[in-house]
Amino acid sequence: MGRRALLLLLLSFLAPWATIALRPALRALGSLHLPTNPTSLPAVAKNYSVLYFQQKVDHFGFNTVKTFNQRYLVADKYWKKNGGSILFYTGNEGDIIWFCNNTGFMWDVAEELKAMLVFAEHRYYGESLPFGDNSFKDSRHLNFLTSEQALADFAELIKHLKRTIPGAENQPVIAIGGSYGGMLAAWFRMKYPHMVVGALAASAPIWQFEDLVPCGVFMKIVTTDFRKSGPHCSESIHRSWDAINRLSNTGSGLQWLTGALHLCSPLTSQDIQHLKDWISETWVNLAMVDYPYASNFLQPLPAWPIKVVCQYLKNPNVSDSLLLQNIFQALNVYYNYSGQVKCLNISETATSSLGTLGWSYQACTEVVMPFCTNGVDDMFEPHSWNLKELSDDCFQQWGVRPRPSWITTMYGGKNISSHTNIVFSNGELDPWSGGGVTKDITDTLVAVTISEGAHHLDLRTKNALDPMSVLLARSLEVRHMKNWIRDFYDSAGKQH
Amino acid sequence: MGRRALLLLLLSFLAPWATIALRPALRALGSLHLPTNPTSLPAVAKNYSVLYFQQKVDHFGFNTVKTFNQRYLVADKYWKKNGGSILFYTGNEGDIIWFCNNTGFMWDVAEELKAMLVFAEHRYYGESLPFGDNSFKDSRHLNFLTSEQALADFAELIKHLKRTIPGAENQPVIAIGGSYGGMLAAWFRMKYPHMVVGALAASAPIWQFEDLVPCGVFMKIVTTDFRKSGPHCSESIHRSWDAINRLSNTGSGLQWLTGALHLCSPLTSQDIQHLKDWISETWVNLAMVDYPYASNFLQPLPAWPIKVVCQYLKNPNVSDSLLLQNIFQALNVYYNYSGQVKCLNISETATSSLGTLGWSYQACTEVVMPFCTNGVDDMFEPHSWNLKELSDDCFQQWGVRPRPSWITTMYGGKNISSHTNIVFSNGELDPWSGGGVTKDITDTLVAVTISEGAHHLDLRTKNALDPMSVLLARSLEVRHMKNWIRDFYDSAGKQH
Repeated sequence: MGRRALLLLLLSFLAPWATIALRPALRALGSLHLPTNPTSLPAVAKNYSVLYFQQKVDHFGFNTVKTFNQRYLVADKYWKKNGGSILFYTGNEGDIIWFCNNTGFMWDVAEELKAMLVFAEHRYYGESLPFGDNSFKDSRHLNFLTSEQALADFAELIKHLKRTIPGAENQPVIAIGGSYGGMLAAWFRMKYPHMVVGALAASAPIWQFEDLVPCGVFMKIVTTDFRKSGPHCSESIHRSWDAINRLSNTGSGLQWLTGALHLCSPLTSQDIQHLKDWISETWVNLAMVDYPYASNFLQPLPAWPIKVVCQYLKNPNVSDSLLLQNIFQALNVYYNYSGQVKCLNISETATSSLGTLGWSYQACTEVVMPFCTNGVDDMFEPHSWNLKELSDDCFQQWGVRPRPSWITTMYGGKNISSHTNIVFSNGELDPWSGGGVTKDITDTLVAVTISEGAHHLDLRTKNALDPMSVLLARSLEVRHMKNWIRDFYDSAGKQH
Repeated sequence: MGRRALLLLLLSFLAPWATIALRPALRALGSLHLPTNPTSLPAVAKNYSVLYFQQKVDHFGFNTVKTFNQRYLVADKYWKKNGGSILFYTGNEGDIIWFCNNTGFMWDVAEELKAMLVFAEHRYYGESLPFGDNSFKDSRHLNFLTSEQALADFAELIKHLKRTIPGAENQPVIAIGGSYGGMLAAWFRMKYPHMVVGALAASAPIWQFEDLVPCGVFMKIVTTDFRKSGPHCSESIHRSWDAINRLSNTGSGLQWLTGALHLCSPLTSQDIQHLKDWISETWVNLAMVDYPYASNFLQPLPAWPIKVVCQYLKNPNVSDSLLLQNIFQALNVYYNYSGQVKCLNISETATSSLGTLGWSYQACTEVVMPFCTNGVDDMFEPHSWNLKELSDDCFQQWGVRPRPSWITTMYGGKNISSHTNIVFSNGELDPWSGGGVTKDITDTLVAVTISEGAHHLDLRTKNALDPMSVLLARSLEVRHMKNWIRDFYDSAGKQH
């Protein structure tokens, strides 16, 4: 149970509740994936139209004629019909408005690229539910939740835009996405190069599959982030697991832990693995959002939050109880930066804008990412990758079994050099960079690395505290996009 | 009814019975698609192993776990583990043994390329039936008959071969196919460039969709073939339709026609459109197999069969009855070259190795090819392209409706210049060349035209009567394949 939960939480990308969704008692939380209230989203004032496009539920079969409405957002303030472009966000596992509001980069470059911005919601997330409230009912209803169907949605939507928006027809489209959305952007360029002239795939771990990278690389990077953010910080965390194990051996220890960690519900010995998973997940999330300025992506946080966290974790060689009190202070940075939180809830870790049920299903089918820890190269308890256990859990929850090699068969694994015009950007602080493309593959399949960047920092809006490395990355990205646009118009000019 | 039948017969590629399959009375003919007896196939002695690979029925969904056995053939007489290659025939709409026996080119070049030959059967054809005898039962069982599923089968099979055949893992694979198989070869390289280093797409009309080419081009080329093969030949055919219409106006005329055309069953006035469709289809088939030597692809035929046919069609300005007697002589060349046939059966036109039910379904779903005639640029009665009628007929027969623009969305239509390493070969006599790529798109997407070639003549085994144009074409094709293989090994060498 414990290992499974850890593995599943790591599978959960930015939707860490996948692990929770698997717990029978909490399955009712499924409603979390339903449309969130846009007013609860970050208060960046973005001016866009909310539109809907009728998509086929099944692009790859003809037996069902069912359709659903895919939501998408369009912002055309800076769009020019002459010489303009279309930046197309390939939506990932969440509410598209949330991604729109967290992808300020596209808004920042719109004027320079004379670009229309389009944000397309991924099927089964946000409002784009193929079967409405029944979408997650069973494997029959979930059968159309795949990356291939999502890419086909994007293709049909782009055709629709070109057909219906005067001036759009003869313009270059660029796919942009981050995280799983970055994988989709890259895959979209690979599979539909006739639809997009290029792709910016930010923090896209397209190689976090099968044995393309070592399964331990992700947690090793998390560990490095903590090690570099303060003296003895990762050691303190490393030591904390045994301390928790010892303290939780007795009823009084459990009671003490509940109090010391300010938990909302009393711990039982059955909760301990879940507690450790929840803490691990917190460190993982911090590694993803270790941004150089105060932000609110998964939670409201200070600048360089790991540094702040590590101020409480300077001394590993203290008693178990003192160590856990320090761990609480560290967790409290993540969960209670605003100071308004009364207690910590080990069932929650991040924004509710992410679709956890959908992602849990994807992690049980196509998106099978092996993770492991050994406690030596990383600061976690050792857990090996166990496909059998994952498969059984998936079968129990969804009635489906993962196909761990399918993504490689479909999208090429490391053998992708025949494709062109993809920029893979990765932040060196981001644990997902371990499964990303961090070296140039060819002249047109290029890697951009951001030494001071966490998870797709480059896609965030510009900030006075942006480090030089992200400014440089964005400038490179814009240069590539301009080249793709120029090549498109050059080639169109030759044809006339 | 008439137009529908003509359009469907033209949709039927090398499986002209699609039109027949639609006729309720003849639906029982569906069993024709079932495994044919290999001993009834051309007597070319090919030495291959017949093997089976377990494929998922649905690569694009996880709800069904059903599998089926895909048949494939392997010949490795000339294969070299060192520096060799794998030529992979992307099977099309028929029994793979029949395609194997009619693709002598691969056998002829095997030694030169040190190649293993693999012929993969297309799902729903030959023995590769996902639901056995129920495969064509209804749209639910047919739901997995798409080009996308077939390409995924090929990808999984190649992975299997590389995994299980020692020495195959680090070898370049080249996709080869003709006709719809040629389309699959090209699409396979486009969608799975990590699986094949290049593709030879022979007589592959990848542009015979939507409005990518004029709908009349196909029948125009058929007409040109007849016009150039004998004086007044196409004029005679052009005149024959009205002559049939006039003769079939009376009972005695129908009786006379039945006798003059040596038909097996007496004609009724309801049969006239079908008769004309059957005759049109004969001319179309002759245009496809107008080979420079005696052959037996669709029927046993003499060399340059249209020339032989046209010897009977020199004089259009004769009485209706004399014209129809001449038409019979011409038809008799196609249906009775052996002299053994007692009467002509308007329900049959070609070999039974092709899967007609499957193709009829594909023509009703993805493979929607617009055809039309105007009787001015061609020698046929005018028929416009009528998607609505096709759609209604398809719905009636299969319970599905065609998606005419899907293939273009999926495979790019004319916007394919970002792909690499595909040779598109076309014979100028072949009516399918009208929807093919007959001009170079880039340095690595090249067109090879064969001035004296009919339908994928280049894929046939070498023959003393081969015209220079096909010898040149094959030599170019081999040169490209050798370049792809060389580039593969060069690149592999650099990595070590």
